[in-house]
Amino acid sequence: MNEALKQAQIAFESDEIPVGAVIVSKNRIIARAHNQTELLTDVTAHAELLAITAAANYLGAKYLTDCKLYVTLEPCAMCAGALYWSQISEVHFAASDPKRGFVTHNSNLLHPKTKIQSGTLGAQAESLLLKFFEKLRK
Amino acid sequence: MNEALKQAQIAFESDEIPVGAVIVSKNRIIARAHNQTELLTDVTAHAELLAITAAANYLGAKYLTDCKLYVTLEPCAMCAGALYWSQISEVHFAASDPKRGFVTHNSNLLHPKTKIQSGTLGAQAESLLLKFFEKLRK
Repeated sequence: MNEALKQAQIAFESDEIPVGAVIVSKNRIIARAHNQTELLTDVTAHAELLAITAAANYLGAKYLTDCKLYVTLEPCAMCAGALYWSQISEVHFAASDPKRGFVTHNSNLLHPKTKIQSGTLGAQAESLLLKFFEKLRK
Repeated sequence: MNEALKQAQIAFESDEIPVGAVIVSKNRIIARAHNQTELLTDVTAHAELLAITAAANYLGAKYLTDCKLYVTLEPCAMCAGALYWSQISEVHFAASDPKRGFVTHNSNLLHPKTKIQSGTLGAQAESLLLKFFEKLRK
């Protein structure tokens, strides 16, 4: 999750909503991404979607059945839907997102085989998000 | 919707699940896309996501508030989530997808301002999908 937080920090410094994600396969990071919706002018450029695409590209395979995602914020419905299709084995998120997180909508959005864990480094991830929105308001 | 069906036909001929999408702005088609999950080895390469990215690129703007999406199959949760972020004004889908369509999960996945219409050319879109899965089984 520390590596995902580093990605969130990169997003913060680029004036993007600070969310970062990494995907791990066999104890190796195979994808790192941060939110790039502003840079790419594309609402689909969330850290998770970019990480899924990068991981599939690295593996040369569509399915991420042996992979774990670490992301600093609870995935939205779009990202949860993408994670469903990827059949990823584990999703770890730091901060919760009671407004747009997938758990609020329907925690069944993920694949039934996907294990979910939350809270690790949640305070740090949330504090970075709060700092970002504070900066935005100024 | 005819143009979206043409895109679905292109997907069919490329051995992709035949789903096509177009996005219309001010009565002009600004994006055309078909499912490319096999070609790109990427579960996120659904017709709708590719169309959203292409439309935003064309407009130079993240939000598609004055746009209408025509897609041959009911969007999945991932695509509905992306359509939410895009704030698209209308979503028209041809065939329903009772298994993975967003209405099954939670029809609130779309933005509250987005109007939904379904059924136009639904039989044609469904017949192409059935033909594809029949071919796959052979």
